[in-house]
Amino acid sequence: MTLCDIGNTNATFFDGRKFWNLTIDEFNLYKPQEKIYYINVNDKANSKLQDPLFINIEPYIKLNSTYIGLGVDRAAACYAVNSGLIVDAGSAITLDLMANGCHIGGFIMPGITTSLSTLKNISSRLNLPLNSQIDLECLPQHTQDAISYGIIKPIVSLINEFSRGKSIYLTGGDGEFLSKFFSQAIYDRMLIFRGMQRAINENKEILC
Amino acid sequence: MTLCDIGNTNATFFDGRKFWNLTIDEFNLYKPQEKIYYINVNDKANSKLQDPLFINIEPYIKLNSTYIGLGVDRAAACYAVNSGLIVDAGSAITLDLMANGCHIGGFIMPGITTSLSTLKNISSRLNLPLNSQIDLECLPQHTQDAISYGIIKPIVSLINEFSRGKSIYLTGGDGEFLSKFFSQAIYDRMLIFRGMQRAINENKEILC
Repeated sequence: MTLCDIGNTNATFFDGRKFWNLTIDEFNLYKPQEKIYYINVNDKANSKLQDPLFINIEPYIKLNSTYIGLGVDRAAACYAVNSGLIVDAGSAITLDLMANGCHIGGFIMPGITTSLSTLKNISSRLNLPLNSQIDLECLPQHTQDAISYGIIKPIVSLINEFSRGKSIYLTGGDGEFLSKFFSQAIYDRMLIFRGMQRAINENKEILC
Repeated sequence: MTLCDIGNTNATFFDGRKFWNLTIDEFNLYKPQEKIYYINVNDKANSKLQDPLFINIEPYIKLNSTYIGLGVDRAAACYAVNSGLIVDAGSAITLDLMANGCHIGGFIMPGITTSLSTLKNISSRLNLPLNSQIDLECLPQHTQDAISYGIIKPIVSLINEFSRGKSIYLTGGDGEFLSKFFSQAIYDRMLIFRGMQRAINENKEILC
């Protein structure tokens, strides 16, 4: 069984063993040879998904939530977790709180690479690479640390603020990097696919 | 006496009574009629500043700091404060800590309008106006609140984290807006000019 998570930048596939990515342009040229169970947040991929081999999992992700307009990728990641803080760190970073199977709410921040690029556009003096080894215990003493700290510290502070006593689940392109800032965070590259798989398992008779 | 703070977007003037702004393009067409005491972080304004009526205050802002490459606008704002947290909220947001006349360090984050525009570029679904009345005590339940919370909450949390027991001085285009989130913050539109004025007062014999 092949699962596919179509995001703003890439379509990520998982066949139960390995992952692979296509850009959205590559995805729009791709011809499926078997059923592909997908979720999609990218309107640019909609026409491609008319092919009957593409099966939309979104209606089967029955997340208990009062949030209006929750992205299906966030819903899928949350659907994989009973209780805890779910952080999906990509071009945007989403934080969502789950408690006893209920989605309590969440929010959206610009991602690490996105913020770095934003600062570069404000001033050429801020066009510097991220210091990925930044020490968040010391106030920065030069510009490269000042922008690295200013990007990473707010994300880490908010994760700490919302995770008190709860498990932290990190996923997305920067999830593994961010996990280094926490002693007990769980980096799970599979999180969205786990939520999709749960929805499929709950609806096997219809979907398989 | 006329002071001028040349930033990434605008040149802001202050004549002791009133403020006015010029865009950098307008500034480059401007002909001074009297001495203008200035600071500048914008390389695009450098050629204009060859006019001898422009007097650079930067060498007279003698901030006690080990920070390498501190923007002169940040130095000027810090030079106006003996102890406290200085927040300059414009296209970028800088936080700097002063204690007993010493600059302890600081960092740089993307500004409010900048982050809103960044999210819009990630996905058209995030192209929504800021909810300036966002309640930071409740986790968001729809997308407009989710992006508003995700932009404002990290700024407010970090200001709270660094200001414990210290005064908070806010300046810059979004300084007044941000001041609403704190019970005892001081919004001071004049902060950079106060630092410039202090440098001028300390060097009257050379400069006036």
